Amino acid sequence: MKLTSFIRDGKASYGIVTDAGIIDLGKRVSEPTLRDFLAADGLARAGAFAAEAADFGLDAVTLAPVIPNPDKIICVGLNYHAHIQETGREESVQPVLFARYAGSQIGHGEALIKPLESDQFDYEGELAVIIGKEGRRISEENALDYVAGYACYNDGSVRDWQKHTHQFMPGKTFAGTGAFGPWMVTTDEIPDPSKLHLQTRLNGQVVQDTDLSLLITSIQRLIAYSSTILPLLPGDVIVTGTPGGVGARRNPPLWMRDGDVCEVEISGIGTLSNPVVAEK
Amino acid sequence: MKLTSFIRDGKASYGIVTDAGIIDLGKRVSEPTLRDFLAADGLARAGAFAAEAADFGLDAVTLAPVIPNPDKIICVGLNYHAHIQETGREESVQPVLFARYAGSQIGHGEALIKPLESDQFDYEGELAVIIGKEGRRISEENALDYVAGYACYNDGSVRDWQKHTHQFMPGKTFAGTGAFGPWMVTTDEIPDPSKLHLQTRLNGQVVQDTDLSLLITSIQRLIAYSSTILPLLPGDVIVTGTPGGVGARRNPPLWMRDGDVCEVEISGIGTLSNPVVAEK
Repeated sequence: MKLTSFIRDGKASYGIVTDAGIIDLGKRVSEPTLRDFLAADGLARAGAFAAEAADFGLDAVTLAPVIPNPDKIICVGLNYHAHIQETGREESVQPVLFARYAGSQIGHGEALIKPLESDQFDYEGELAVIIGKEGRRISEENALDYVAGYACYNDGSVRDWQKHTHQFMPGKTFAGTGAFGPWMVTTDEIPDPSKLHLQTRLNGQVVQDTDLSLLITSIQRLIAYSSTILPLLPGDVIVTGTPGGVGARRNPPLWMRDGDVCEVEISGIGTLSNPVVAEK
Repeated sequence: MKLTSFIRDGKASYGIVTDAGIIDLGKRVSEPTLRDFLAADGLARAGAFAAEAADFGLDAVTLAPVIPNPDKIICVGLNYHAHIQETGREESVQPVLFARYAGSQIGHGEALIKPLESDQFDYEGELAVIIGKEGRRISEENALDYVAGYACYNDGSVRDWQKHTHQFMPGKTFAGTGAFGPWMVTTDEIPDPSKLHLQTRLNGQVVQDTDLSLLITSIQRLIAYSSTILPLLPGDVIVTGTPGGVGARRNPPLWMRDGDVCEVEISGIGTLSNPVVAEK
Protein backbone atom coordinates (compact mmCIF):
# COMPACT_ATOMS: atom_id res chain seq x y z
CA MET A 1 0.00 0.00 0.00
CA LYS A 2 1.14 3.55 -0.78
CA LEU A 3 0.41 6.30 1.76
CA THR A 4 1.17 9.99 1.59
CA SER A 5 0.24 13.46 2.82
CA PHE A 6 -1.18 16.12 0.52
CA ILE A 7 -2.87 19.50 0.31
CA ARG A 8 -6.16 19.95 -1.53
CA ASP A 9 -8.12 23.20 -1.74
CA GLY A 10 -5.70 24.63 0.84
CA LYS A 11 -6.45 21.88 3.36
CA ALA A 12 -3.91 19.32 4.59
CA SER A 13 -4.89 15.64 4.51
CA TYR A 14 -3.41 12.21 3.79
CA GLY A 15 -4.51 9.06 2.06
CA ILE A 16 -3.91 5.87 0.13
CA VAL A 17 -2.45 6.24 -3.37
CA THR A 18 -3.79 3.82 -5.98
CA ASP A 19 -3.54 3.68 -9.77
CA ALA A 20 -6.90 5.49 -9.89
CA GLY A 21 -5.87 8.31 -7.57
CA ILE A 22 -6.14 9.08 -3.86
CA ILE A 23 -8.45 7.56 -1.25
CA ASP A 24 -8.71 10.44 1.24
CA LEU A 25 -8.18 8.96 4.70
CA GLY A 26 -8.30 12.37 6.36
CA LYS A 27 -12.04 12.54 5.73
CA ARG A 28 -12.64 8.93 6.81
CA VAL A 29 -10.83 8.83 10.16
CA SER A 30 -10.35 11.24 13.06
CA GLU A 31 -6.54 11.57 13.19
CA PRO A 32 -5.48 14.95 11.76
CA THR A 33 -2.15 13.81 10.22
CA LEU A 34 -0.56 10.67 8.79
CA ARG A 35 1.83 10.71 11.76
CA ASP A 36 -1.12 10.59 14.17
CA PHE A 37 -2.76 7.90 12.06
CA LEU A 38 0.36 5.71 12.20
CA ALA A 39 0.44 6.20 15.98
CA ALA A 40 -3.20 5.05 16.22
CA ASP A 41 -2.58 1.67 14.59
CA GLY A 42 -3.22 3.22 11.19
CA LEU A 43 -1.37 0.60 9.17
CA ALA A 44 -3.73 -2.10 10.43
CA ARG A 45 -6.78 0.11 9.90
CA ALA A 46 -5.90 1.42 6.44
CA GLY A 47 -6.51 -1.89 4.71
CA ALA A 48 -10.24 -1.60 5.32
CA PHE A 49 -10.34 1.45 3.00
CA ALA A 50 -7.92 0.23 0.33
CA ALA A 51 -10.57 -1.18 -2.00
CA GLU A 52 -12.72 1.96 -2.02
CA ALA A 53 -12.95 4.19 -5.08
CA ALA A 54 -10.41 6.99 -5.34
CA ASP A 55 -11.81 10.37 -4.28
CA PHE A 56 -9.74 12.35 -6.79
CA GLY A 57 -6.75 12.01 -9.09
CA LEU A 58 -3.17 12.60 -8.04
CA ASP A 59 -3.18 15.68 -10.26
CA ALA A 60 -5.93 17.25 -8.12
CA VAL A 61 -3.64 17.63 -5.11
CA THR A 62 -0.29 19.11 -4.11
CA LEU A 63 1.77 16.33 -2.58
CA ALA A 64 3.28 17.23 0.79
CA PRO A 65 6.30 15.57 2.45
CA VAL A 66 5.15 12.00 3.23
CA ILE A 67 5.31 12.92 6.93
CA PRO A 68 5.27 16.73 7.10
CA ASN A 69 5.71 16.89 10.89
CA PRO A 70 7.96 14.09 12.15
CA ASP A 71 9.07 14.30 15.77
CA LYS A 72 12.56 13.40 14.55
CA ILE A 73 14.37 13.36 11.21
CA ILE A 74 17.57 11.41 11.78
CA CYS A 75 20.02 11.73 8.89
CA VAL A 76 22.90 9.34 8.31
CA GLY A 77 26.18 10.46 6.79
CA LEU A 78 28.92 8.49 5.07
CA ASN A 79 27.01 5.22 4.86
CA TYR A 80 28.30 3.92 1.50
CA HIS A 81 31.97 3.12 0.80
CA ALA A 82 31.81 4.86 -2.58
CA HIS A 83 30.74 8.11 -0.90
CA ILE A 84 33.31 7.83 1.90
CA GLN A 85 36.02 7.34 -0.72
CA GLU A 86 35.00 10.41 -2.71
CA THR A 87 34.96 12.57 0.45
CA GLY A 88 38.39 11.38 1.57
CA ARG A 89 37.07 10.74 5.09
CA GLU A 90 37.75 7.78 7.36
CA GLU A 91 35.15 5.10 7.90
CA SER A 92 33.81 5.11 11.47
CA VAL A 93 32.76 2.13 13.56
CA GLN A 94 29.52 3.85 14.61
CA PRO A 95 27.00 5.49 12.28
CA VAL A 96 27.35 9.22 11.60
CA LEU A 97 24.06 10.84 12.67
CA PHE A 98 22.89 14.42 12.39
CA ALA A 99 19.50 16.14 12.30
CA ARG A 100 17.31 17.95 9.80
CA TYR A 101 14.41 20.10 11.02
CA ALA A 102 10.92 19.29 9.73
CA GLY A 103 10.39 22.84 8.44
CA SER A 104 13.02 22.24 5.76
CA GLN A 105 10.98 19.53 4.01
CA ILE A 106 9.06 19.69 0.71
CA GLY A 107 6.86 17.24 -1.18
CA HIS A 108 7.14 15.62 -4.60
CA GLY A 109 6.84 18.26 -7.31
CA GLU A 110 7.59 21.19 -5.03
CA ALA A 111 10.66 23.33 -5.65
CA LEU A 112 14.05 22.52 -4.17
CA ILE A 113 15.23 26.00 -3.12
CA LYS A 114 18.80 27.03 -3.91
CA PRO A 115 19.31 29.67 -1.22
CA LEU A 116 20.54 33.19 -1.90
CA GLU A 117 23.59 32.59 0.27
CA SER A 118 25.17 29.75 -1.71
CA ASP A 119 25.91 28.44 -5.19
CA GLN A 120 26.93 25.02 -3.83
CA PHE A 121 23.53 23.33 -3.75
CA ASP A 122 23.93 19.56 -4.04
CA TYR A 123 21.64 16.55 -4.36
CA GLU A 124 21.75 13.45 -2.16
CA GLY A 125 19.39 10.64 -3.19
CA GLU A 126 18.55 8.43 -0.20
CA LEU A 127 16.16 5.80 1.09
CA ALA A 128 13.94 7.09 3.92
CA VAL A 129 12.66 4.70 6.59
CA ILE A 130 9.39 5.71 8.26
CA ILE A 131 8.89 4.36 11.80
CA GLY A 132 5.50 2.78 12.54
CA LYS A 133 5.50 2.16 16.28
CA GLU A 134 7.22 3.46 19.39
CA GLY A 135 10.30 1.68 20.68
CA ARG A 136 13.41 2.16 22.78
CA ARG A 137 16.54 0.00 22.60
CA ILE A 138 15.06 -2.02 19.76
CA SER A 139 17.11 -5.11 18.89
CA GLU A 140 18.47 -5.51 15.37
CA GLU A 141 16.53 -8.77 15.15
CA ASN A 142 13.19 -7.02 15.72
CA ALA A 143 14.04 -3.71 14.07
CA LEU A 144 12.08 -4.12 10.85
CA ASP A 145 8.91 -4.76 12.90
CA TYR A 146 9.10 -1.07 13.85
CA VAL A 147 9.10 0.16 10.23
CA ALA A 148 5.89 1.41 8.63
CA GLY A 149 7.34 1.86 5.16
CA TYR A 150 9.94 3.31 2.83
CA ALA A 151 10.13 6.40 0.63
CA CYS A 152 12.54 8.38 -1.54
CA TYR A 153 14.39 11.34 -0.01
CA ASN A 154 16.56 14.03 -1.54
CA ASP A 155 18.73 15.32 1.32
CA GLY A 156 19.55 18.57 -0.49
CA SER A 157 22.81 19.95 0.91
CA VAL A 158 24.25 23.47 0.95
CA ARG A 159 27.88 22.36 0.92
CA ASP A 160 29.64 25.57 1.96
CA TRP A 161 27.34 25.94 4.97
CA GLN A 162 27.77 22.22 5.75
CA LYS A 163 31.51 22.91 5.96
CA HIS A 164 31.39 26.14 7.96
CA THR A 165 32.44 23.99 10.93
CA HIS A 166 32.85 20.26 11.69
CA GLN A 167 29.10 19.96 12.42
CA PHE A 168 27.02 19.30 9.28
CA MET A 169 23.62 20.56 10.44
CA PRO A 170 23.58 24.13 9.06
CA GLY A 171 24.10 22.92 5.48
CA LYS A 172 21.60 20.13 5.90
CA THR A 173 18.46 21.97 6.94
CA PHE A 174 17.97 25.04 4.75
CA ALA A 175 14.33 25.80 4.00
CA GLY A 176 13.07 23.91 0.94
CA THR A 177 15.95 21.44 0.69
CA GLY A 178 14.58 18.14 2.03
CA ALA A 179 12.38 16.46 -0.60
CA PHE A 180 10.39 13.48 0.74
CA GLY A 181 8.04 11.50 -1.44
CA PRO A 182 6.15 10.89 -3.53
CA TRP A 183 4.69 8.40 -1.05
CA MET A 184 5.75 5.67 1.35
CA VAL A 185 5.33 2.01 0.39
CA THR A 186 4.40 -0.19 3.34
CA THR A 187 6.64 -3.02 4.45
CA ASP A 188 4.32 -5.82 3.31
CA GLU A 189 5.43 -4.90 -0.24
CA ILE A 190 9.12 -4.46 0.74
CA PRO A 191 10.03 -7.30 3.10
CA ASP A 192 13.78 -6.85 2.48
CA PRO A 193 14.90 -3.24 1.86
CA SER A 194 18.45 -4.38 1.09
CA LYS A 195 17.11 -5.65 -2.25
CA LEU A 196 16.16 -2.15 -3.41
CA HIS A 197 18.03 -0.13 -6.01
CA LEU A 198 18.42 3.67 -5.92
CA GLN A 199 19.18 6.07 -8.74
CA THR A 200 19.49 9.87 -8.67
CA ARG A 201 19.19 11.81 -11.93
CA LEU A 202 19.90 15.48 -12.56
CA ASN A 203 18.22 16.70 -15.75
CA GLY A 204 17.94 13.07 -16.82
CA GLN A 205 21.65 12.27 -16.33
CA VAL A 206 22.31 9.42 -13.88
CA VAL A 207 24.48 10.88 -11.09
CA GLN A 208 24.04 8.28 -8.32
CA ASP A 209 23.25 4.59 -8.74
CA THR A 210 23.47 1.99 -5.99
CA ASP A 211 22.09 -1.17 -4.50
CA LEU A 212 20.76 -0.66 -0.98
CA SER A 213 22.67 -3.81 0.01
CA LEU A 214 25.76 -1.55 -0.01
CA LEU A 215 24.67 0.41 3.07
CA ILE A 216 27.51 0.18 5.61
CA THR A 217 25.23 0.46 8.65
CA SER A 218 22.12 -1.56 7.89
CA ILE A 219 18.62 -0.26 8.47
CA GLN A 220 18.30 -2.73 11.35
CA ARG A 221 21.40 -1.39 13.05
CA LEU A 222 20.42 2.25 12.44
CA ILE A 223 17.14 1.56 14.24
CA ALA A 224 18.87 -0.24 17.11
CA TYR A 225 21.50 2.48 17.51
CA SER A 226 19.22 5.51 17.31
CA SER A 227 16.55 3.96 19.54
CA THR A 228 19.23 3.47 22.21
CA ILE A 229 19.55 7.26 22.38
CA LEU A 230 15.86 8.04 22.79
CA PRO A 231 12.55 6.42 21.86
CA LEU A 232 11.67 6.24 18.18
CA LEU A 233 8.08 7.35 17.59
CA PRO A 234 5.55 6.66 14.83
CA GLY A 235 6.27 9.00 11.93
CA ASP A 236 9.96 9.43 12.77
CA VAL A 237 12.14 9.35 9.68
CA ILE A 238 15.61 7.85 9.27
CA VAL A 239 17.31 9.08 6.09
CA THR A 240 19.81 6.35 5.47
CA GLY A 241 22.68 8.10 3.69
CA THR A 242 23.74 8.91 0.16
CA PRO A 243 25.80 6.79 -2.26
CA GLY A 244 28.78 7.99 -4.27
CA GLY A 245 28.38 10.55 -7.02
CA VAL A 246 27.48 13.75 -5.17
CA GLY A 247 28.04 16.95 -7.13
CA ALA A 248 30.56 18.41 -4.70
CA ARG A 249 33.08 15.63 -5.37
CA ARG A 250 32.96 15.80 -9.18
CA ASN A 251 35.60 17.55 -11.23
CA PRO A 252 34.37 20.10 -12.05
CA PRO A 253 31.71 20.14 -9.32
CA LEU A 254 28.11 19.68 -10.46
CA TRP A 255 25.78 22.02 -8.59
CA MET A 256 22.00 22.23 -8.85
CA ARG A 257 20.87 25.43 -10.56
CA ASP A 258 17.68 27.28 -11.29
CA GLY A 259 15.61 25.34 -13.84
CA ASP A 260 17.19 21.93 -13.15
CA VAL A 261 15.08 18.88 -12.33
CA CYS A 262 16.34 16.34 -9.79
CA GLU A 263 14.85 12.85 -9.50
CA VAL A 264 15.40 10.08 -6.95
CA GLU A 265 14.04 6.72 -8.09
CA ILE A 266 13.94 3.62 -5.88
CA SER A 267 12.80 0.26 -7.24
CA GLY A 268 9.52 -0.87 -5.74
CA ILE A 269 8.75 2.65 -4.47
CA GLY A 270 8.66 5.18 -7.30
CA THR A 271 10.27 8.42 -8.41
CA LEU A 272 10.57 11.62 -6.39
CA SER A 273 10.94 14.55 -8.80
CA ASN A 274 11.56 18.18 -7.91
CA PRO A 275 12.40 21.27 -9.94
CA VAL A 276 15.19 23.47 -8.65
CA VAL A 277 14.41 27.15 -8.11
CA ALA A 278 17.05 29.72 -7.16
CA GLU A 279 15.89 32.22 -4.55
CA LYS A 280 15.87 35.80 -5.81
CA MET B 1 7.49 38.26 33.94
CA LYS B 2 8.26 34.57 34.45
CA LEU B 3 6.48 32.00 32.24
CA THR B 4 6.71 28.23 32.27
CA SER B 5 5.00 24.95 31.41
CA PHE B 6 3.89 22.49 34.07
CA ILE B 7 1.85 19.37 34.78
CA ARG B 8 -0.85 19.37 37.47
CA ASP B 9 -3.11 16.43 38.23
CA GLY B 10 -1.73 14.72 35.14
CA LYS B 11 -2.72 17.60 32.85
CA ALA B 12 -0.25 19.78 30.93
CA SER B 13 -0.64 23.56 31.19
CA TYR B 14 1.43 26.74 31.43
CA GLY B 15 1.32 29.98 33.32
CA ILE B 16 2.86 33.01 34.95
CA VAL B 17 5.13 32.36 37.94
CA THR B 18 4.93 34.92 40.77
CA ASP B 19 6.20 34.93 44.36
CA ALA B 20 2.77 33.63 45.40
CA GLY B 21 2.70 30.71 42.95
CA ILE B 22 1.36 30.08 39.46
CA ILE B 23 -1.33 31.95 37.54
CA ASP B 24 -2.64 29.20 35.26
CA LEU B 25 -2.86 30.66 31.75
CA GLY B 26 -3.92 27.34 30.25
CA LYS B 27 -7.34 27.68 31.87
CA ARG B 28 -7.70 31.38 30.91
CA VAL B 29 -6.84 31.28 27.20
CA SER B 30 -7.50 28.88 24.33
CA GLU B 31 -3.96 28.00 23.19
CA PRO B 32 -3.04 24.47 24.36
CA THR B 33 0.70 25.10 24.92
CA LEU B 34 3.06 27.96 25.81
CA ARG B 35 4.53 27.62 22.32
CA ASP B 36 1.09 28.21 20.79
CA PHE B 37 0.47 31.07 23.21
CA LEU B 38 3.73 32.79 22.19
CA ALA B 39 2.73 32.36 18.54
CA ALA B 40 -0.64 34.01 19.26
CA ASP B 41 0.88 37.26 20.60
CA GLY B 42 0.95 35.74 24.06
CA LEU B 43 3.64 38.04 25.46
CA ALA B 44 1.44 41.08 24.84
CA ARG B 45 -1.65 39.30 26.21
CA ALA B 46 -0.05 37.80 29.33
CA GLY B 47 0.29 41.15 31.08
CA ALA B 48 -3.48 41.40 31.51
CA PHE B 49 -3.39 38.36 33.83
CA ALA B 50 -0.20 39.17 35.73
CA ALA B 51 -1.90 40.91 38.67
CA GLU B 52 -4.39 38.12 39.32
CA ALA B 53 -4.11 35.87 42.37
CA ALA B 54 -2.03 32.72 41.99
CA ASP B 55 -4.12 29.60 41.40
CA PHE B 56 -1.76 27.29 43.31
CA GLY B 57 1.73 27.16 44.74
CA LEU B 58 4.80 26.08 42.77
CA ASP B 59 4.95 22.99 44.97
CA ALA B 60 1.54 21.88 43.69
CA VAL B 61 2.84 21.23 40.17
CA THR B 62 5.56 19.31 38.34
CA LEU B 63 7.50 21.79 36.26
CA ALA B 64 7.92 20.75 32.63
CA PRO B 65 10.58 21.98 30.20
CA VAL B 66 9.80 25.70 29.68
CA ILE B 67 8.82 24.84 26.08
CA PRO B 68 8.19 21.07 26.01
CA ASN B 69 7.56 20.92 22.25
CA PRO B 70 9.77 23.40 20.36
CA ASP B 71 9.85 23.11 16.59
CA LYS B 72 13.63 23.47 16.82
CA ILE B 73 16.24 23.19 19.55
CA ILE B 74 19.43 24.67 18.11
CA CYS B 75 22.48 23.92 20.24
CA VAL B 76 25.73 25.87 19.98
CA GLY B 77 29.10 24.24 20.57
CA LEU B 78 32.45 25.77 21.47
CA ASN B 79 31.17 29.27 22.12
CA TYR B 80 33.48 30.32 24.99
CA HIS B 81 37.27 30.56 24.68
CA ALA B 82 37.78 28.81 28.02
CA HIS B 83 35.83 25.78 26.76
CA ILE B 84 37.58 25.73 23.36
CA GLN B 85 40.93 25.77 25.15
CA GLU B 86 40.06 22.84 27.40
CA THR B 87 38.86 20.77 24.41
CA GLY B 88 42.00 21.49 22.38
CA ARG B 89 39.89 22.37 19.33
CA GLU B 90 40.39 25.25 16.90
CA GLU B 91 38.13 28.28 17.01
CA SER B 92 35.89 28.52 13.94
CA VAL B 93 34.75 31.66 12.14
CA GLN B 94 31.15 30.47 12.04
CA PRO B 95 29.13 29.15 14.98
CA VAL B 96 29.11 25.39 15.62
CA LEU B 97 25.44 24.31 15.50
CA PHE B 98 23.89 20.92 16.16
CA ALA B 99 20.44 19.71 17.19
CA ARG B 100 18.77 18.19 20.21
CA TYR B 101 15.36 16.51 19.86
CA ALA B 102 12.49 17.79 22.01
CA GLY B 103 11.83 14.33 23.46
CA SER B 104 15.13 14.48 25.34
CA GLN B 105 14.04 17.42 27.51
CA ILE B 106 13.07 17.48 31.20
CA GLY B 107 11.85 20.20 33.56
CA HIS B 108 13.25 21.68 36.76
CA GLY B 109 13.32 19.07 39.51
CA GLU B 110 12.99 16.10 37.16
CA ALA B 111 15.78 13.53 36.98
CA LEU B 112 18.72 13.86 34.64
CA ILE B 113 19.06 10.28 33.38
CA LYS B 114 22.53 8.72 33.20
CA PRO B 115 21.90 6.08 30.53
CA LEU B 116 22.75 2.42 30.91
CA GLU B 117 25.16 2.60 28.01
CA SER B 118 27.62 5.15 29.43
CA ASP B 119 29.44 6.27 32.56
CA GLN B 120 30.54 9.53 30.91
CA PHE B 121 27.52 11.69 31.72
CA ASP B 122 28.53 15.36 31.81
CA TYR B 123 26.87 18.68 32.68
CA GLU B 124 26.85 21.78 30.45
CA GLY B 125 25.28 24.86 32.02
CA GLU B 126 24.01 27.23 29.32
CA LEU B 127 21.75 30.20 28.67
CA ALA B 128 18.70 29.31 26.56
CA VAL B 129 17.10 31.90 24.28
CA ILE B 130 13.39 31.41 23.55
CA ILE B 131 12.16 32.90 20.27
CA GLY B 132 8.96 34.98 20.42
CA LYS B 133 8.07 35.65 16.80
CA GLU B 134 8.69 34.18 13.38
CA GLY B 135 11.51 35.53 11.28
CA ARG B 136 13.85 34.63 8.43
CA ARG B 137 17.19 36.31 7.73
CA ILE B 138 16.84 38.46 10.83
CA SER B 139 19.48 41.19 11.05
CA GLU B 140 21.77 41.32 14.08
CA GLU B 141 20.46 44.82 14.74
CA ASN B 142 16.87 43.60 15.11
CA ALA B 143 17.65 40.17 16.55
CA LEU B 144 16.69 40.80 20.17
CA ASP B 145 13.21 41.93 19.02
CA TYR B 146 12.60 38.27 18.13
CA VAL B 147 13.40 36.98 21.63
CA ALA B 148 10.58 36.20 24.07
CA GLY B 149 12.83 35.46 27.03
CA TYR B 150 15.72 33.60 28.59
CA ALA B 151 16.04 30.47 30.73
CA CYS B 152 18.64 28.12 32.22
CA TYR B 153 19.56 24.96 30.31
CA ASN B 154 21.65 21.95 31.27
CA ASP B 155 22.75 20.42 27.96
CA GLY B 156 23.55 17.04 29.53
CA SER B 157 26.08 15.23 27.35
CA VAL B 158 26.93 11.55 26.99
CA ARG B 159 30.55 12.11 26.02
CA ASP B 160 31.51 8.71 24.62
CA TRP B 161 28.45 8.74 22.34
CA GLN B 162 29.19 12.37 21.39
CA LYS B 163 32.59 11.15 20.20
CA HIS B 164 31.47 8.01 18.39
CA THR B 165 31.99 10.04 15.20
CA HIS B 166 32.71 13.67 14.29
CA GLN B 167 29.00 14.54 14.58
CA PHE B 168 27.97 15.44 18.15
CA MET B 169 24.23 14.70 17.97
CA PRO B 170 24.02 11.15 19.37
CA GLY B 171 25.67 12.19 22.66
CA LYS B 172 23.56 15.33 22.87
CA THR B 173 20.04 13.99 22.74
CA PHE B 174 19.70 10.97 25.04
CA ALA B 175 16.33 10.73 26.76
CA GLY B 176 16.22 12.73 29.99
CA THR B 177 19.39 14.75 29.41
CA GLY B 178 18.21 18.24 28.42
CA ALA B 179 17.05 20.16 31.51
CA PHE B 180 15.23 23.43 30.69
CA GLY B 181 13.86 25.72 33.38
CA PRO B 182 12.71 26.52 35.89
CA TRP B 183 10.99 29.27 33.84
CA MET B 184 11.77 31.86 31.20
CA VAL B 185 12.16 35.51 32.16
CA THR B 186 10.80 37.88 29.53
CA THR B 187 13.06 40.38 27.79
CA ASP B 188 11.55 43.46 29.47
CA GLU B 189 13.43 42.31 32.59
CA ILE B 190 16.63 41.38 30.69
CA PRO B 191 17.27 44.09 28.10
CA ASP B 192 20.94 43.08 27.71
CA PRO B 193 21.65 39.34 28.09
CA SER B 194 25.42 39.94 27.86
CA LYS B 195 25.21 41.35 31.39
CA LEU B 196 24.11 37.99 32.84
CA HIS B 197 26.29 35.68 34.89
CA LEU B 198 26.09 31.85 34.79
CA GLN B 199 27.23 29.31 37.33
CA THR B 200 26.94 25.51 37.27
CA ARG B 201 27.24 23.57 40.53
CA LEU B 202 27.56 19.81 41.02
CA ASN B 203 26.64 18.79 44.56
CA GLY B 204 27.19 22.40 45.58
CA GLN B 205 30.69 22.66 44.10
CA VAL B 206 31.08 25.43 41.51
CA VAL B 207 32.20 23.73 38.28
CA GLN B 208 31.41 26.42 35.69
CA ASP B 209 31.31 30.18 36.22
CA THR B 210 31.17 32.78 33.47
CA ASP B 211 29.91 36.14 32.34
CA LEU B 212 27.62 35.89 29.31
CA SER B 213 29.64 38.75 27.79
CA LEU B 214 32.26 36.07 27.01
CA LEU B 215 30.10 34.35 24.39
CA ILE B 216 32.16 34.22 21.17
CA THR B 217 29.15 34.31 18.85
CA SER B 218 26.67 36.76 20.37
CA ILE B 219 23.00 35.99 20.78
CA GLN B 220 22.28 38.53 18.06
CA ARG B 221 24.58 36.79 15.60
CA LEU B 222 23.29 33.32 16.53
CA ILE B 223 19.78 34.50 15.66
CA ALA B 224 20.92 36.10 12.41
CA TYR B 225 22.93 33.03 11.36
CA SER B 226 20.37 30.37 12.23
CA SER B 227 17.45 32.32 10.75
CA THR B 228 19.36 32.47 7.46
CA ILE B 229 19.07 28.69 7.27
CA LEU B 230 15.34 28.47 7.89
CA PRO B 231 12.66 30.53 9.65
CA LEU B 232 12.83 30.75 13.42
CA LEU B 233 9.40 30.18 14.96
CA PRO B 234 7.83 31.16 18.29
CA GLY B 235 8.96 28.68 20.93
CA ASP B 236 12.19 27.76 19.14
CA VAL B 237 15.10 27.44 21.54
CA ILE B 238 18.74 28.41 20.98
CA VAL B 239 21.01 26.88 23.61
CA THR B 240 23.98 29.22 23.47
CA GLY B 241 26.93 27.04 24.46
CA THR B 242 28.77 26.01 27.58
CA PRO B 243 31.68 27.77 29.35
CA GLY B 244 34.89 26.11 30.52
CA GLY B 245 34.86 23.60 33.32
CA VAL B 246 33.06 20.58 31.84
CA GLY B 247 33.64 17.29 33.64
CA ALA B 248 35.20 15.52 30.66
CA ARG B 249 38.18 17.90 30.59
CA ARG B 250 39.07 17.68 34.28
CA ASN B 251 41.88 15.53 35.59
CA PRO B 252 40.56 13.17 36.76
CA PRO B 253 37.27 13.55 34.83
CA LEU B 254 34.22 14.51 36.88
CA TRP B 255 31.14 12.59 35.74
CA MET B 256 27.58 12.92 37.02
CA ARG B 257 26.50 9.87 39.02
CA ASP B 258 23.39 8.50 40.64
CA GLY B 259 22.40 10.67 43.59
CA ASP B 260 24.20 13.82 42.43
CA VAL B 261 22.41 17.17 42.15
CA CYS B 262 23.29 19.53 39.31
CA GLU B 263 22.31 23.22 39.36
CA VAL B 264 22.55 25.92 36.70
CA GLU B 265 22.04 29.42 38.09
CA ILE B 266 21.81 32.54 35.93
CA SER B 267 21.58 36.00 37.48
CA GLY B 268 18.21 37.63 36.90
CA ILE B 269 16.63 34.29 35.94
CA GLY B 270 16.94 31.75 38.76
CA THR B 271 18.31 28.28 39.44
CA LEU B 272 17.59 25.11 37.49
CA SER B 273 18.17 22.11 39.75
CA ASN B 274 18.00 18.44 38.82
CA PRO B 275 18.88 15.23 40.62
CA VAL B 276 20.87 12.66 38.66
CA VAL B 277 19.46 9.15 38.43
CA ALA B 278 21.34 6.24 36.86
CA GLU B 279 19.20 3.99 34.72
CA LYS B 280 18.98 0.42 36.01
